[in-house]
Amino acid sequence: MTDKLKHQLHFLAEADKMKNILRQTYITDKSRQENSAEHSWHFALTALTLYEYCGIEGVDINRVIKMALVHDLVEIYAGDTPAYDAAGNADKDEREREAADKLFSLLTEEQAAEYRSLWEEFDRMETPDALFSSAVDRLQSFHNIYLSGAHPWIKYAVTATQIYQRMMPIKTALPELWEYIERVINEGLENGYIKRNTE
Amino acid sequence: MTDKLKHQLHFLAEADKMKNILRQTYITDKSRQENSAEHSWHFALTALTLYEYCGIEGVDINRVIKMALVHDLVEIYAGDTPAYDAAGNADKDEREREAADKLFSLLTEEQAAEYRSLWEEFDRMETPDALFSSAVDRLQSFHNIYLSGAHPWIKYAVTATQIYQRMMPIKTALPELWEYIERVINEGLENGYIKRNTE
Repeated sequence: MTDKLKHQLHFLAEADKMKNILRQTYITDKSRQENSAEHSWHFALTALTLYEYCGIEGVDINRVIKMALVHDLVEIYAGDTPAYDAAGNADKDEREREAADKLFSLLTEEQAAEYRSLWEEFDRMETPDALFSSAVDRLQSFHNIYLSGAHPWIKYAVTATQIYQRMMPIKTALPELWEYIERVINEGLENGYIKRNTE
Repeated sequence: MTDKLKHQLHFLAEADKMKNILRQTYITDKSRQENSAEHSWHFALTALTLYEYCGIEGVDINRVIKMALVHDLVEIYAGDTPAYDAAGNADKDEREREAADKLFSLLTEEQAAEYRSLWEEFDRMETPDALFSSAVDRLQSFHNIYLSGAHPWIKYAVTATQIYQRMMPIKTALPELWEYIERVINEGLENGYIKRNTE
């Protein structure tokens, strides 16, 4: 077995640690927090299932799915940074860049470059594939948060404006889903688990 | 929102139940069993990472990744059937067919047919994509079982022959990985957590 293959198997063993990275989102039966490995799978399945509603030209669903597979890998060393945690987001970029250096160094230059550029493209949210991917990523979280008791919205006392801002990519990438976003936010406002901006 | 889209969101909520389907395999830190959602993600990432070693002509990595995403969905209703559990495997096909009927009926005819045929193709192990997919599926399990204390091999008193039979797709689909399979099995025999056929 070549050193290269040994390193790839080691990378896949390191990737297993994604199963212990806990997100703020719960699974739908409310029994526990979702981890980043199962979130990545659910994100990819959501992209495949809802691709027909894509409102952006030139999206390659196969690249989107690859982005879903690798988009959270840096969390193995950098941890999950909750979307509504301002302090955690202050040094997120630096922590994740260092994590990427460490993780992708296990791979050959070519493969490291492929995974790293998929992750960076996703994070920059500029290309059609990245815009659609980030919309689906946010929709998967939103749908799960709604179905599992709104934990992160309550924990961080999130306002409707904050959620609208975070979900904004959905408006153009999945326009037919926007009505669902609005309905859930209105329901959250009525039931008090989403804050009004004046509260 | 159309009924079709409502049903697709319901399908994605049902898919969340994969996160509670426990496999015999443990995660590498040995703290708990792996679930089918995170396994599907790890399988897809393994396929992408090791595709360069594919020994079969005409494999489409994008279809392989889609197979990985949907290959275990029927377990939501049929449960996981451990590979080395003879009793569970006796009625596996019937249970999984019924589960597929129930789950995929949430989708439109076209999407249901796409997911169902990916799953059936995977299960039949005849096409290049399915042969490569099942080899990667088995490699992901094998690698995780080895790294996490060999639980299912010990629990079912599995013999070297049984493991060789189960891993056989790897020999042609990922020939450069075969040395690793042999090494691990020999190590298991030496250390007693894989049984000799005469024991």
